[in-house]
Amino acid sequence: MTNPRYCPYFHHTIELLGRRWTGVILRVLAAEPARFGDIKGHIPGLSDRLLTSRLCELEAEGLVKRCQQDGTNHYGLTAKGFELKPAIEAVEQVAVSFARREEPADRPGRIRSA
Amino acid sequence: MTNPRYCPYFHHTIELLGRRWTGVILRVLAAEPARFGDIKGHIPGLSDRLLTSRLCELEAEGLVKRCQQDGTNHYGLTAKGFELKPAIEAVEQVAVSFARREEPADRPGRIRSA
Repeated sequence: MTNPRYCPYFHHTIELLGRRWTGVILRVLAAEPARFGDIKGHIPGLSDRLLTSRLCELEAEGLVKRCQQDGTNHYGLTAKGFELKPAIEAVEQVAVSFARREEPADRPGRIRSA
Repeated sequence: MTNPRYCPYFHHTIELLGRRWTGVILRVLAAEPARFGDIKGHIPGLSDRLLTSRLCELEAEGLVKRCQQDGTNHYGLTAKGFELKPAIEAVEQVAVSFARREEPADRPGRIRSA
């Protein structure tokens, strides 16, 4: 179906997933529905403003929906959003494989002992 | 190895792949090494300036290298770059699956008959 060199569907989806904070927000929600504050708590450096903006974009794409759980508002993936899970996992797998081969001091987020 | 909610390696890699034009450039090079002008020819809307900038970033990440082929300069994936191929394919697969379910008129790049 797609041109082996250029695919507009791939182009749209890779840049949607890779938009700043979007991939990590989707990965949090792929684990389980979460409240706004919990999503923010999981992702270092993410502001209220950008989380709000990204959730709106993901709702508009039909990938995320608001739902009630235990009487409070949660955000969760839609059925369409869950279809992204294999792609998220494939990116994570190669990312972790790259990290394992790097020098320990270069690893992001690594805490070095004194 | 990774936190199920937040993984800095995933964060870095998804935003690298999803940076504007980067994913589509990598996909062109995953097919075969290509000259600068050929990469540009495959990707609608990509400027010389941005292609140069993205190729520099991908060389710095160790994902792309310059090579000689048929006496001319080509860009190709490194062994590390080729490790991204399953992730690129997984994103493409879900992107095409989403597109197949959309209304034909919404499909990007579709040419409608008169």
